[in-house]
Amino acid sequence: MDEQAVCLGVQELIGLCAEVLDEDRLEEWPDLFTDPYRYEIISRSNREAGMRQGVMYAASRGMLLDRIFTLRQANLYEPHRYRHVVGPYRFKSIKGDTAIVHTHFMVARIMHTGETSLFATGRYLDDINVSGPDYKFRERVVVIDSDQIDTLLAIPL
Amino acid sequence: MDEQAVCLGVQELIGLCAEVLDEDRLEEWPDLFTDPYRYEIISRSNREAGMRQGVMYAASRGMLLDRIFTLRQANLYEPHRYRHVVGPYRFKSIKGDTAIVHTHFMVARIMHTGETSLFATGRYLDDINVSGPDYKFRERVVVIDSDQIDTLLAIPL
Amino acid sequence: MDEQAVCLGVQELIGLCAEVLDEDRLEEWPDLFTDPYRYEIISRSNREAGMRQGVMYAASRGMLLDRIFTLRQANLYEPHRYRHVVGPYRFKSIKGDTAIVHTHFMVARIMHTGETSLFATGRYLDDINVSGPDYKFRERVVVIDSDQIDTLLAIPL
Repeated sequence: MDEQAVCLGVQELIGLCAEVLDEDRLEEWPDLFTDPYRYEIISRSNREAGMRQGVMYAASRGMLLDRIFTLRQANLYEPHRYRHVVGPYRFKSIKGDTAIVHTHFMVARIMHTGETSLFATGRYLDDINVSGPDYKFRERVVVIDSDQIDTLLAIPL
Repeated sequence: MDEQAVCLGVQELIGLCAEVLDEDRLEEWPDLFTDPYRYEIISRSNREAGMRQGVMYAASRGMLLDRIFTLRQANLYEPHRYRHVVGPYRFKSIKGDTAIVHTHFMVARIMHTGETSLFATGRYLDDINVSGPDYKFRERVVVIDSDQIDTLLAIPL
Repeated sequence: MDEQAVCLGVQELIGLCAEVLDEDRLEEWPDLFTDPYRYEIISRSNREAGMRQGVMYAASRGMLLDRIFTLRQANLYEPHRYRHVVGPYRFKSIKGDTAIVHTHFMVARIMHTGETSLFATGRYLDDINVSGPDYKFRERVVVIDSDQIDTLLAIPL
């Protein structure tokens, strides 16, 4: 296995995931995960306290698609968009078909009015299947640094 | 063509462009473009609406130099500086002498008083000439996420 | 010397340094420096004015350990954490056992209450010893863009 090529492929997957969210191509997002998988957003302090319940959770393609359908139909939220910047990438281990990677992120939120704010910061803790030509997330735990985010969270991070 | 080397060269050019802007070496900025070329800043919503007119536009070295000369001489603006962070880089295609790359960015603005704010977020849509030893932008469209930026924009993004 | 491998190793060191700070593993931070070394935080304007005195300074492992001990014991500061994002990396020169690298950064600060703000932006000016298997900082000058940061600065940037 060419470790450097795996690292580049991992960055490509993480970048693509940021792009589909930021460019409002949410329907492509579930394709970046294996099925089943585990996706969770949890605050750092809740995670350190051993809580199993995050502010968003999904474990199957159906659950992801449901969430996107709700977002598209429900008009529950004031329209807004995200912008992700990511890095550094921290390659924790690359073994067999699995890469464990932790990635720092900042997400800005841009409201329909144009108002821009720093919305969330934290780390992606990713378990990525690197066996096929298209890498996929087996597990993504989004650990957010702040506890103040819950009620505003509509689009996945 | 060694695709990986091209990717590194592209990141080098994009990084250099951020550096010359943030370090107030504006006079070096036009050298990063072919002549003629196309440089445009436009908001996402205006671009999606098919508008051809952005908030900043230039198509020749002379136009870029004029803008820099004005910035240096005119004292129209309260002194300020930018800080760019960029990434992920999204390599869309690398063919022949051309690389198409979309790059996420955040720009902080630091006023002379020291006040720092998140000024702009968005994507660089770059068409880069990768044929020579020094890569150059043929086209850079800066798509900003917010519509609220126009009147504050003096230095190129 | 494989320049590309050195670049990757440099990114690994810079990423690790951001990680140990953000994840509150401060005790690991001094291990990333040679001994002696030079660590300094200074504002851009003070640096351009030729001032030798920054807002934080250390030159030996003992000084770094002292600072961390103070942070751990003193309860002088309201608890808070950082989140770094970094990039672009600007590789200035790689010669012999030395890499000179300038890296853009943004740091968000997350207070215990969850309040998140853009705390600092600037550049790392690094002189890195790349001769051993574990790269180490010989000198890190943290040039912050704003002059308004001093009194809030507790954790190294």
